[in-house]
Amino acid sequence: MERIDQAQARAWLATALAEARAGLAEGGIPVGAALYGADGTLLGRGRNRRVQDGDPSAHGETAAFRDAGRQRSYRGTTMVTTLSPCWYCSGLVRQFGISRVVVGEAATFHGGHDWLAGHGVQIVLLDDPECTALMRGFIEKNPALWNEDIGE
Amino acid sequence: MERIDQAQARAWLATALAEARAGLAEGGIPVGAALYGADGTLLGRGRNRRVQDGDPSAHGETAAFRDAGRQRSYRGTTMVTTLSPCWYCSGLVRQFGISRVVVGEAATFHGGHDWLAGHGVQIVLLDDPECTALMRGFIEKNPALWNEDIGE
Repeated sequence: MERIDQAQARAWLATALAEARAGLAEGGIPVGAALYGADGTLLGRGRNRRVQDGDPSAHGETAAFRDAGRQRSYRGTTMVTTLSPCWYCSGLVRQFGISRVVVGEAATFHGGHDWLAGHGVQIVLLDDPECTALMRGFIEKNPALWNEDIGE
Repeated sequence: MERIDQAQARAWLATALAEARAGLAEGGIPVGAALYGADGTLLGRGRNRRVQDGDPSAHGETAAFRDAGRQRSYRGTTMVTTLSPCWYCSGLVRQFGISRVVVGEAATFHGGHDWLAGHGVQIVLLDDPECTALMRGFIEKNPALWNEDIGE
């Protein structure tokens, strides 16, 4: 799997960030994600919809995966997410053989991206200040909602 | 976490099996699941809906989890599934702290239930012949669809 440069990763992160900002504007949990194909095509995008739809299964990554519809293979695809993927979303990446994960930040929540790296998934951790600020601000104001979303 | 007896586990499995059979009748992948509360209340039930809804994110377990809606805590809950949970569904169980998983069978597909056991989840493996027959018959007739569902 070819490594991508930071400029490419940041360009893709912009899609996930737009989803996260839209979620925040709706009163939701500001985690967004996008799934890009091996050729760089946007396959799907989505955001956490726990609050908006009352749907606890809609994390950013699973929403983007769902939005992409049925795919025969995920070889070469990249999941871009504003936040380190939780076990649920890390399991999704591993099971479907998604090749790469671009992580906006892992400072406010450290999920399963090291586990994925150990299973051959290419991880690009961006430490993006806007992703961190979005989550930090949200968690400070809504600690119970955030804990509900990660099962704590 | 109290261990449940086989009779209780089999009674709960009947709900998941009814979902799996309904999925097969719809032309879908015959994996069903149910989420039971700590007090034995049925919180949610569902089945794989890849074919029916064109939704690759709807595995049996995630469909049952979604059907249960928002829950403040999953402590003491049991996920009952006709088939050993894949990494995606195993990640769901771990992230949300679901306490117990009743597995109909792990002969046709061995997912992440050992990993879950290593992380403190109580696993009840039933080796149910009807669950195995359902999956075996389906996989023989639809190998490509099954491989798509597990990302292979």
